Amino acid sequence: MYSIVVKSTQKLSQFIKPAAYRPSRGLASKLIFSEYGEPVKVVQKTSEDENVLQPDKNEILVKMLAAPVNPVDINVIEGTYPARPRLPAVPGYEGVGIVEKVGPEVVEIQEGDHVIPIHGFLGTWRTHLVMASDKVRKVPQELGLAEAATLTINPCTAYRMLKDFSNLNAGDYIIQNGANSSCGQIIIQLCKLWGINSINIVRNRPDLPEVKNYLTELGATYVFSEEELLQNAIQKNDIQKPILGLNCVGGRMALEIAKYLEDGSVLITYGGMSKEPVYIPTSALIFKDIEVRGFWMTRWFNENDDSVEKEDMFEELITMIGNKDLQGSLYEMVKFDDYTKALEHTMSSKGMEGKKFILDFTS
Amino acid sequence: MYSIVVKSTQKLSQFIKPAAYRPSRGLASKLIFSEYGEPVKVVQKTSEDENVLQPDKNEILVKMLAAPVNPVDINVIEGTYPARPRLPAVPGYEGVGIVEKVGPEVVEIQEGDHVIPIHGFLGTWRTHLVMASDKVRKVPQELGLAEAATLTINPCTAYRMLKDFSNLNAGDYIIQNGANSSCGQIIIQLCKLWGINSINIVRNRPDLPEVKNYLTELGATYVFSEEELLQNAIQKNDIQKPILGLNCVGGRMALEIAKYLEDGSVLITYGGMSKEPVYIPTSALIFKDIEVRGFWMTRWFNENDDSVEKEDMFEELITMIGNKDLQGSLYEMVKFDDYTKALEHTMSSKGMEGKKFILDFTS
Repeated sequence: MYSIVVKSTQKLSQFIKPAAYRPSRGLASKLIFSEYGEPVKVVQKTSEDENVLQPDKNEILVKMLAAPVNPVDINVIEGTYPARPRLPAVPGYEGVGIVEKVGPEVVEIQEGDHVIPIHGFLGTWRTHLVMASDKVRKVPQELGLAEAATLTINPCTAYRMLKDFSNLNAGDYIIQNGANSSCGQIIIQLCKLWGINSINIVRNRPDLPEVKNYLTELGATYVFSEEELLQNAIQKNDIQKPILGLNCVGGRMALEIAKYLEDGSVLITYGGMSKEPVYIPTSALIFKDIEVRGFWMTRWFNENDDSVEKEDMFEELITMIGNKDLQGSLYEMVKFDDYTKALEHTMSSKGMEGKKFILDFTS
Repeated sequence: MYSIVVKSTQKLSQFIKPAAYRPSRGLASKLIFSEYGEPVKVVQKTSEDENVLQPDKNEILVKMLAAPVNPVDINVIEGTYPARPRLPAVPGYEGVGIVEKVGPEVVEIQEGDHVIPIHGFLGTWRTHLVMASDKVRKVPQELGLAEAATLTINPCTAYRMLKDFSNLNAGDYIIQNGANSSCGQIIIQLCKLWGINSINIVRNRPDLPEVKNYLTELGATYVFSEEELLQNAIQKNDIQKPILGLNCVGGRMALEIAKYLEDGSVLITYGGMSKEPVYIPTSALIFKDIEVRGFWMTRWFNENDDSVEKEDMFEELITMIGNKDLQGSLYEMVKFDDYTKALEHTMSSKGMEGKKFILDFTS
């Protein structure tokens, strides 16, 4: 079983430093899937036609350095994700690469820059890709590869959910379930940095004391198991009512956090680990005026292509990570050739609660 | 069993005309309950102290003419409603009365005016009450007593839900469950009047053909049973996606209507007849950006005390009723002395789906 307590206080960037990368073309390859199905069966490695790797006009040629296997990638390959790419397709939503060549009209990006794609479904699981230069964002080379490669899903989702739905001020309370998920851990740290109190619910588990310690060290104000929540932990601790709820579990555990929200609060769903629908108490909707919403990072990026908010968010998150104020969850780098292992491990580690496996193109 | 097809095409105002009322004080009495519990056991009739029936300054003395027994009144008496009045209390949320005397500072209301209370929990189940003149609204004497006495809950709820959450235009579609509830019938008629198409879901029932005919005559575009909905009636009929959902049932049937909503739609809960929580598909929240809200008429009145919207709403609804464009559901007048019968009938007729029983103070 996966345990998150190993070296829990080490920061990501202590593990991985940017590789001393030297540009090189040869042996371009990519992962593709030609039918939806079980990832280890349908994903295959194939060589890339190097003739397509010429950046035109405003394009750039990127040599990938690292790309994580996220639960969303698994769902895309299985065909259970609502956005289905035309097949055959290259999987991979996130990643970081180094610019190897720029098209004649590219002005703001130079060879050697580190970039992350910020528009979904480009297919990051390949050694090289050519893409429009306005579909990436430069990141400092000093940023760890793992941090850069995992910046656009969990940190951005946590950031937006805390910023966009409630007028949260220092001293306010939020409540979240699935609190030790990758995103949940970022939420805890952002709350701590912004002076917001977080009430964190995790599944009943044998290693509960260790999980509580770990999340408390990250900055959690309270951590309760689902069982403790059902046994009135909120009342027993006389905790102020939260004005924002974040749900990545669904089912009964969505209802349980909705019950404790202040009147007029927002409950945001961004995941459904229980595979059950979201249950909401009728009385919370009618009498407490709770607003129930969903959040999807992809839609936000689509709707905020050139927004100031997007730029501010990246600046702030990158600064926090650079200052070691914000750390991701544990991860393991896996050689690109061993991609099957990364797929298997991601699926066996129970999705969002698992360690992250990151494809490493540098070794 | 209650059947709604009897004389279904008759309008309320054909049944009841305003009584030729002559002011009289004596024998003032009221219903009270001193503990929460089963209505027929805890509600008792008692005489009113006539010394308190003197309107002061901006007050008016109202002699009640008619007051319905609503499901909300039953819940208040049972103690299951979130707003609990201080006991002993007089039940009754809605009603219509005639002004018998006005205080020295009252200017806009005269003796003989018909008025309806529009602020909750005043306790309308009594022959006389003294109240602030700004807590009532004048209604035309030509309006039937039953229509006037039942104006503030169902017609106003239906009106606000259709007006305030979506930008509905003629030709758009809405979907509702519990469509033959008192409020559901008003929703159907308002949609018809405003050129909006309504998809209406009713419970599986033996008299389904009659219910379908009745609701279609009221103006329903489509009427399906829950069973037909689960058997893909929406797809089979190739119906345009609704942009507003109205839920008074909860449980699985909330989820079923959420599934068919257009991206970005609003689903409003205003009742919970199934006694189950509202189930919402996780994917509808995340990927379709469905917004789930609740509506409570009492809150709206509290927040819109002097609003133009409130005045416009009453004007429009009263005009529609006067023009016989809008009819309520079936009802039966019950002598005030026989209030126990009205309580029993309301509880046996399955809450919101039942005929309405209206206390009659004129006979």
